[in-house]
Parts: sequence; C-alpha cells; structure tokens
Amino acid sequence: MTISSFHPPVRTLMGPGPSDVNPRVLEAMARPTIGHLDPAFVGMMDETKTLLKYAFQTENKLTMPVSAPGSAGMETCFANLVEPGDKVIVCQNGVFGGRMKENVERCGGEAIMVLDDWGKPVDPDKLETALAENSDAKIVAFVHAETSTGAISDAQVLVSLAHKYDCLTIVDAVTSLGGSPLKVDKWEIDAIYSGTQKCLSCTPGISPVSFNERAIEKIQNRKTKVQSWFMDLNLVMDYWGDGGSRSYHHTAPINALYGLHESLVILQEEGLENAWARHDNNHQALKAGVEAMGLSFFVDEADRLPQLNAIQFPEGTDEAKVRSELLNRYSLEIGAGLGPMAGKIWRIGLMGFASNQKNVLNCLGALDAVLTDMGADINSGKAVNAAMASYSS
Amino acid sequence: MTISSFHPPVRTLMGPGPSDVNPRVLEAMARPTIGHLDPAFVGMMDETKTLLKYAFQTENKLTMPVSAPGSAGMETCFANLVEPGDKVIVCQNGVFGGRMKENVERCGGEAIMVLDDWGKPVDPDKLETALAENSDAKIVAFVHAETSTGAISDAQVLVSLAHKYDCLTIVDAVTSLGGSPLKVDKWEIDAIYSGTQKCLSCTPGISPVSFNERAIEKIQNRKTKVQSWFMDLNLVMDYWGDGGSRSYHHTAPINALYGLHESLVILQEEGLENAWARHDNNHQALKAGVEAMGLSFFVDEADRLPQLNAIQFPEGTDEAKVRSELLNRYSLEIGAGLGPMAGKIWRIGLMGFASNQKNVLNCLGALDAVLTDMGADINSGKAVNAAMASYSS
Repeated sequence: MTISSFHPPVRTLMGPGPSDVNPRVLEAMARPTIGHLDPAFVGMMDETKTLLKYAFQTENKLTMPVSAPGSAGMETCFANLVEPGDKVIVCQNGVFGGRMKENVERCGGEAIMVLDDWGKPVDPDKLETALAENSDAKIVAFVHAETSTGAISDAQVLVSLAHKYDCLTIVDAVTSLGGSPLKVDKWEIDAIYSGTQKCLSCTPGISPVSFNERAIEKIQNRKTKVQSWFMDLNLVMDYWGDGGSRSYHHTAPINALYGLHESLVILQEEGLENAWARHDNNHQALKAGVEAMGLSFFVDEADRLPQLNAIQFPEGTDEAKVRSELLNRYSLEIGAGLGPMAGKIWRIGLMGFASNQKNVLNCLGALDAVLTDMGADINSGKAVNAAMASYSS
Repeated sequence: MTISSFHPPVRTLMGPGPSDVNPRVLEAMARPTIGHLDPAFVGMMDETKTLLKYAFQTENKLTMPVSAPGSAGMETCFANLVEPGDKVIVCQNGVFGGRMKENVERCGGEAIMVLDDWGKPVDPDKLETALAENSDAKIVAFVHAETSTGAISDAQVLVSLAHKYDCLTIVDAVTSLGGSPLKVDKWEIDAIYSGTQKCLSCTPGISPVSFNERAIEKIQNRKTKVQSWFMDLNLVMDYWGDGGSRSYHHTAPINALYGLHESLVILQEEGLENAWARHDNNHQALKAGVEAMGLSFFVDEADRLPQLNAIQFPEGTDEAKVRSELLNRYSLEIGAGLGPMAGKIWRIGLMGFASNQKNVLNCLGALDAVLTDMGADINSGKAVNAAMASYSS
C-alpha cells in the first residue's frame, strides 16, 4: 500500500452544491491553525456571528455556525425544538421535506405531512387547513428553497400562518441564504438553518443557524434533555454565547471557520442586495440560453430559484451520458435529479461564486456542444448568443 | 459594521489540541473543491478509508471519517450502539468518561459508572467487579488516553474483560491515535472514535471511527431507529460503504477531508511505529527538562501519555498568568487544566507535527524564563540543557 497526496482536478461546480468556492476562501482555510480558546479565535467567533446576523438579516443573539454540514444544522433545529410527543406540521414539496419528517420522528415527535407536488411551492392554503385541523400542533417546518427541485416557497406567508395558530417555525434555508431574499427578523422566522457550500461561496461542512427568543424559550423550558449531546444548544450556547463563559464544549473546526468568516466578509463587501441581483441576472441569462436551445424549466417561472435551475431535457436523451461528457470534456459538473427526479431533470446551480457570466456562457456552450454531438433534438448554436443578449439588455 | 479578513497569529500549539498542523495539510485544504459525488472524490474516499485502516491497525470495512468533530464521533458510537434500556458500563477517570455517561443517558441507556481517581488509569479489577455485578450489561466504554489528565489505560486488558462478560466495547482514542500504540484488531476493539486535531497533525473538525462486525451486527439488528439521522450509520454506510451505492446522505466536508487524507499520507510515510517512537522521544526530553526545572508530573510514570503531559507547578504560581505570558511573549499555547483539574495542572501537548525537538526546547526555554521572571521556586536555567542531553543519550 502506498498512497500519494491527492490532487483534485479543477472543476467548474454548477450542480446543487458544493458550488465553486471563492479562491479567497480556500486561501483563508490554509492560514495557520490556532487554539479554539485563543483570544484571537474568540474575536473571530464574534465577528463571524456579526457577519452571519447580516447574512440572515437578524438581530438574534443565538446566531452561529454549527460545526457540521447542513443536515446536522437541520437536526440541531429539530433535536432542540421538538420534544417527545410534539406534533409538527411538515410541508413537503421535495427531498428535504422528507428528511424533516425523519427528523421529527426520530426526536419522538409526530409529523403531520402537508404534501405538494414536487416543483411546486408549498401551498399556504393546505398549510392553513392542516393548522386548523391540528390545533395542538407546536411547530411548522418547511423548506424555503428546495434544492431537489429549484422551487422557492413564500416563507413570510407560511411563517405568518404558523404564528396565527401559535406554532413555532423551522425553516430550511440551505440553498437560499446569500442567493435569494431572506429576512429572518422581518419574516419572524423562529429557527433557521443553512449550509456554507451553496450561495456563500464557501466549502461544505458548516451549518449556520439562528434562533429567536421564542425558540430559545422553548429550548430552555424543555421537559427532557435534548437527545443529542453534540447538538444541545443549551451547551453550545455557553461556548458561542454573548458574554457567555466560552466554556469548552467541543473543539471547533478552526480552519473551516476561517473559510466561513472570509466568505461572509466577501458577502458583506458585495452587499446582500447586490448578491441577490447577481444571482438573478445570471439566472436570466442562463434561462435565455436554455430556452433558445429549446429546453424548458421544470418549475413555473414565478416559483423558480435563480440559483438552482431544474432543466428538462429532450425525450430519449441519455442524461447520465451528457453529464459525464460535460465532466470529462469540460471538467464541468452539473447535477442529476435527486430521488424521484432522477433521470427526469438536470439541476444547474448558479450559486455564490459560481454565479457569473463566464460560467453561464461556458455551461451553455458545453451543453449545446454535447447535446448536438449526441444528436439530441435541440436548436444548436443559439444558446450562448441568447445569454449574451440577456446580459446586454 | 465593516469586518476585514481574519489573519490569525502564528502560534506554537502545545496544548491538549488542536496541535500544530503540518503545513502540507494546510496546503491540501486549499486545493480546489470538487463535488462529493465526483469520481475523483470517490477515489479519494477509498484511499482515506485504506489509510485510516492503517492508522487504526484494522481491517474493519466500516472505517471512515465522521463529518464532524471528535465529540460527534463519540456520539456516533453511542447513538448507534446503545438502544433504549441498554445497560452500559462506563469507566471514568477524567472529563471524557463523564461525557460518555451523558451520551449513554441521552440515548436512553443506563450508565453504570466505574470511577477511578483522575490521573490514574482505569482499574481492570474494578471493571471486572462491575461486570460481575451487572451480568445484563451490553457495552463497556472507556477512554484509552484521557486528554484531561494525560493518563493511558490498558485498552487490550479492558476489552478482553468486557468480552469475557459478553459486552461490546466503545473506546475513545481521540488523543491516542497516531501518538501511542493502538491496535484495533489485535486488541479486538468493537467500536472506536478519534479526532484529527491531536496526533494526526491535521486541523480539527473530523472524527475517524471504526466498527467491527460484532458492532455492525448490533447496529443492524436494532429494534428502534438510531435517534440521530445525521449520525445513523445504516445511512452513512450507504455513502461510505464498500461497493455501496454511494447514495447521497449529506454533503461531505470536501476540503477538510483533503486535509485528513494528506495527514494520513504523512503518517504512512513516517510509519506508525516511527511516529509512536518520536512521540516518546520528545516526551522523554520534555520530561528531563521539566524535572530539571524542579517541576513534577501529575500522572505516575508508567501511566503517562507521551503526547499529553500534565505538569504540576510550584505552589502559589499564578498559572493563568504564566499561560498568558507564554502566549503573549512567545506565541506559545499550552493547556490549562479542564474541569476539576483547572488551576491544578498545565497540559503540555506534544502531538503529531507538534512533537519535535524545536518545540520541546522552545517550550522549556519559555517556561523557564516566565517562571523565573515571576519569581517562582524553580531551578532556573537547567531545563533546556537537560532536554538536549536526553536527545543525545
């Protein structure tokens, strides 16, 4: 056995995430490691919290990065807020709503499912019906931006309905944070989690979360201990808390947090509104190209996420071959469909640093070439110009 | 609010971890991010498993890195192996045994505690008494190398006792892996977890784990679902498994895994036995210096971890001031005592890349200077020479 250092190929990452990482973030991750109780690190933690509050548009004191990927951020929300026996209304319109159900049940809660078609947003009317029928429900959970379909739901409306029926809300913002308008305080979201590897232009592995006072109150008044020691916010708060004891809980992933800090500095420099507008501009150009090629979107225009484009391909296309040709010929990664959407859509991500003109033109050009070579029924040679026209308009 | 990029100070990390990271690891972490389903990444996953098997000295197929820090690795072991109602014998001789108790209880198990004095190894006789008195116990858990005290326990003897009474074993090897002899297969350890930030010379944030067939059998035959979705090995196995479906579970922390891969390549290059000998040599030199200064060790010589040196200081020493002087004047971090040991010992780590002659001499020289300046009752000016003599002998 002799294994050598691993040198990854240089890819363009236009799948559902991880997306292209800003080189400044990679450089930051290689800075010298310091101790997790070092005064310099504690200062960086405070800055990271401030920057996350900006990204989430919140003043929530309990705003911090969980030291694990987005799915652990999801579980942190459920494990802390759901007590055994709690009824939780879960709105599902894709893969990640299903994962929420799993979380509720593993926490000893009862999940009441509100189902919508995949590719559609969560229907507020259905949620209200479920709320009216389940007056003892404690929590409503939904995905703001469904990464499996590319559909966005109206978080403000859904949260306001939940509150009308005295429910707390848990919102999945893994794909929306930094890419689409998201206003935690204005929309009165109680608990929210996200990931670093989508629109924050950072590497995967960390999950930003935020909890308001109502959520903290429920956590502090639990009748049973949180079943996870690692995710117990009562303990984590002592470490990340304002003026807290900074008491040791676990060893923070120092260098990964350097990367997150840098990515949030970059977001602050650009400005949230500018980042949202950039995601939208590049989406419009991709859309112009995709449609010029004769392909169509899976999600209705009004419900589309600019950062996650679910594209339908011509009938009979060997879609896996297209993706492997893109990878092998152009070192370009686009995403397959997930779960029931496998073999039905591609997911083209324009997230964070990956959301730029160069990527849009390159992706359209490569897709056009591969599909043309494979004899697919598309309008060849139109896509790139259509995208360029979109940028000029 | 304007926050700039964070540039950490360059420290020498000689606390209980994180320890100095090999620059090759930092460089590896800054390599281009690729997708977690990319064929190139899948190849790297396989190599990482092979390298981890070498580090753990095991052929266990389920040997992999958990995508979160060591305390999540601990919880992964308990959440998967402990079923509600299971009686678990936990041997505690420091902070981390107490954390095991928390884990058992949060999984719905009953913890039977076997207590030893802090700084002493786990007493096999006490364990055997507890096993004899609790014939319905299912699992024995203990810490191989207690990071809070610097004491090592005889894992082989403890595991063999547990097996005699038909119990599975969960072993904490956070501080031992790569620094002290550890032979998972030979010692027949059933489940083990470690961390990356100690003797592997890697950044914190990942937890290598390994499970043998007996452990997997218990996990696969559970009557209830694992309470954590994120840590459920039945799901994770599909992603990391041999010839498995590589089915999507969570987005792996790509760049952190580049770092782990590189650290394991470095360990393979050096050779495990050489790494163990290096840790011992540097420990002997530190010991010579510490004793020449007139200071003493907290742990009896036979039970000392070479990589974690618990040192007692002269009565009346303002120990926190010593540590802050070391940090401010020499950018050198040593560790405080943890929990009940706070204010009673220092913990000087010689872990992984940090275990070298330069660090030993620098630490002794700096400690000597600070203590002398503070008027402490030590033999000034002897430590560095004593350490040098140890290297020459």
